[in-house]
Amino acid sequence: MKKLMMVYLLLIVAFVGYVVMYRLEDQRRSTGWQDGGLHGSIGENYVMVTFQSGMEYWKNILKGFEDGGDALGVSVDYRGSTQYDAKEQITVLEQVIAKKPAGIALSAIDSKALTSTINKAVDAGIPVVLFDADAPNSKAYSFLATNNYEAGATAADEMARILGREGQVGIITQPGQQNHDDRMSGFRDAIAAKYPAMSVVDVREGKGDTMIAKNAAAEMIKKHPELKGIFATEASGGAGAADAVIAANKTGKVKIIGFDTNKATLDRISDGTISATIAQGTWNMGYWSLQYLFHLHHGLTVPAPTLGNDVSPLPPRVDTGVTVVTRENVNDYYAK
Amino acid sequence: MKKLMMVYLLLIVAFVGYVVMYRLEDQRRSTGWQDGGLHGSIGENYVMVTFQSGMEYWKNILKGFEDGGDALGVSVDYRGSTQYDAKEQITVLEQVIAKKPAGIALSAIDSKALTSTINKAVDAGIPVVLFDADAPNSKAYSFLATNNYEAGATAADEMARILGREGQVGIITQPGQQNHDDRMSGFRDAIAAKYPAMSVVDVREGKGDTMIAKNAAAEMIKKHPELKGIFATEASGGAGAADAVIAANKTGKVKIIGFDTNKATLDRISDGTISATIAQGTWNMGYWSLQYLFHLHHGLTVPAPTLGNDVSPLPPRVDTGVTVVTRENVNDYYAK
Repeated sequence: MKKLMMVYLLLIVAFVGYVVMYRLEDQRRSTGWQDGGLHGSIGENYVMVTFQSGMEYWKNILKGFEDGGDALGVSVDYRGSTQYDAKEQITVLEQVIAKKPAGIALSAIDSKALTSTINKAVDAGIPVVLFDADAPNSKAYSFLATNNYEAGATAADEMARILGREGQVGIITQPGQQNHDDRMSGFRDAIAAKYPAMSVVDVREGKGDTMIAKNAAAEMIKKHPELKGIFATEASGGAGAADAVIAANKTGKVKIIGFDTNKATLDRISDGTISATIAQGTWNMGYWSLQYLFHLHHGLTVPAPTLGNDVSPLPPRVDTGVTVVTRENVNDYYAK
Repeated sequence: MKKLMMVYLLLIVAFVGYVVMYRLEDQRRSTGWQDGGLHGSIGENYVMVTFQSGMEYWKNILKGFEDGGDALGVSVDYRGSTQYDAKEQITVLEQVIAKKPAGIALSAIDSKALTSTINKAVDAGIPVVLFDADAPNSKAYSFLATNNYEAGATAADEMARILGREGQVGIITQPGQQNHDDRMSGFRDAIAAKYPAMSVVDVREGKGDTMIAKNAAAEMIKKHPELKGIFATEASGGAGAADAVIAANKTGKVKIIGFDTNKATLDRISDGTISATIAQGTWNMGYWSLQYLFHLHHGLTVPAPTLGNDVSPLPPRVDTGVTVVTRENVNDYYAK
């Protein structure tokens, strides 16, 4: 009798435990927006696709993408062409599409070459958002990136702060590349509009190469003995300008503002040769790309019956922001 | 003996049930990002604050804000000054701050007047984001709104489509108001850059008043007999232009593109007097404001140890997008 009671007891406990555990499990497995919470399933796979996949620059974007995946309980993958090669990126993207992922976040190496493959994914029902490098005529739902014009204006404000709002400055850039042209325009317009005692006296090509940038900066320094500052619109330009300033024995006399946070730039900020650099909101690019893809996959965007079929279901453009990095906060930017 | 066993049994079942239920409850009550899911608690209260709180325009923004609250399992409130009065909005905002909500989404009636009260909230640890109308020098974390320059360019593209890419057009606007100036610039620049057979021949003030806009449009039509289109940068201007076109017996000969989706504009699209209007991504403003506040409240933004203290924890600027509304999709825009 006692034993039988014990067995009943155990059975009942096991049953109750099972029922409630099942409820727990069910809640966990349920997808999208339910019971007050956004959560996906681990079977949902979101893929981030880049080019030159080993590049340091992508790391923090991927960190944001992964953090987004952890936040929503979904899985993420990272793929990319190894080279700076549009055909290779198209092949990688085709392979990713073939696996029918829940969504694709892409940085397009070439806005025109990638468009038809992006559209193929969207037409197949796979949501695509773009980050860092756009393909504006594609069917991708959103573009999350630095507003480069604003980033240039931020560099101008920092240069003005460093120079006490006066003096001649030069720019080292890559003409013809939209992001660099925008950074330069933002810088020039802000100087012209806000700092009457400052002027941009020289603009030279750095071609994304430290040696070429060094020579360009050296010529600039020679031609303009009163030069007080150099703004480089990308990382190699800043490093090259630093080398030129050291060679000309003008450290501290010609202030440099760089772009991005590669190790060479951070080291030059630590040793005082570069005064500041503009860090892009890379984590935001990855995190909010994942969020947007999740919302598209689960149909949690603008309610279609309210706003028609042709409405943009997500914000089409997100400025992921920049931060000014100086000697004071440079240690936060070294890879941990 | 049997009875005692029964009591034990019940006690044990109750205990196991309690423990597992507690776990469930705990999971539900737990906040932020845990166990693969974003969910808050019902005690978390997020408040949306506007001015002229009864205005039709806010409805769809509030719908997005509420949908965001449902998605994340948190509660939302709506407050606002009843009048177009900065002092009244400041009072309302002070009252909201006093209740220590989890976050505030604000449309600032006056960018300067509201700044110190916004900063007071942020300094008290209450996250603030702005939507629709900015206070750019405040400590608010992000601004979610229509990119009005792009919206103007979209209107130009639609005008070009309607007119077969040729003809004289005029603009009715409110000079000196930033959003209207941006819409006009976007429209003019797009016409100048893309449509050589089109030209903007007249710009007049509508002052946000249907009668004034009607008179302005009437003068414009009289002065330019070849006028083929009018773009109004806000809703009253479109309604006024429609009245003027009807009075001049030019319906269908002078095409009108309006802005926003109030009932008067939608009715004029239905009857064919207005060809199209530019609908703003209002649901996106509300939904993503709630998301951003939730992320700030739970510290789910850019990891501070990675990116320093002064980093922008969220995208500082979100373009919430526009949609072109024509006779084909106008029914989707009537309030349901």
